[in-house]
Amino acid sequence: MSEQRVSRDLSRAEALRRLGSVPFGRVVYTQRALPAIRAVNHVVLDGRVVICADEGTAIVGAGGDGAVVAYEAGEISQAERAGWSVMITGLARIVADRGEAARCQEAVDPWLAGKTGVVIQIEPGIVTGFELR
Amino acid sequence: MSEQRVSRDLSRAEALRRLGSVPFGRVVYTQRALPAIRAVNHVVLDGRVVICADEGTAIVGAGGDGAVVAYEAGEISQAERAGWSVMITGLARIVADRGEAARCQEAVDPWLAGKTGVVIQIEPGIVTGFELR
Repeated sequence: MSEQRVSRDLSRAEALRRLGSVPFGRVVYTQRALPAIRAVNHVVLDGRVVICADEGTAIVGAGGDGAVVAYEAGEISQAERAGWSVMITGLARIVADRGEAARCQEAVDPWLAGKTGVVIQIEPGIVTGFELR
Repeated sequence: MSEQRVSRDLSRAEALRRLGSVPFGRVVYTQRALPAIRAVNHVVLDGRVVICADEGTAIVGAGGDGAVVAYEAGEISQAERAGWSVMITGLARIVADRGEAARCQEAVDPWLAGKTGVVIQIEPGIVTGFELR
């Protein structure tokens, strides 16, 4: 049996603050009707999660109107069996405005991926999180 | 600009070996037609990913015939800007057989979650992974 852990839920504000404190997470989307996940770098800019990706249309959908995605980030330590995880669900849109896209790309340091030409903003619609101690 | 990273794809065998070397990952599923993600502990047992969860029917679907999910695990170091990530996509099923469920529950040490009464096996249908150095 595992040692007793104490888990507490994070408030929306605390969850978004923690999300902004780490440089990468995982975007969850639907591709050809199947669930897909990809590790990417992010920043939280003006209250939105901003990621840069190569496969923009796979994540956001071909229509261009955006798609609902999930995003998860956290710090979980195997050694300490402790940490936190934040999950958001919200509408993802490709940033079409060139000036805005350039500003986002400057803010994101995309060391996790190679080609990252497409800038995607995710609205934090539903925000949940937990901390485990 | 970020430093140049070298990314290499992992073979299926290497990806599954690495997946089995870490105690937790993230299961990705569809809940009320929306993408959802949850950090859980896992083991690789008889070539399948085994997780224990409270919300079994949310992950696998109410029908009981199973659902296609994605699963991601990895070790990514922010300090070193290096690491690896493995993603699988495959059919998830609740383990109904009591003996088999008990064997799975003994193998998984579910320190990431509280109630974990439902045992789920995920078939590694599509397996991809990368290593970043």
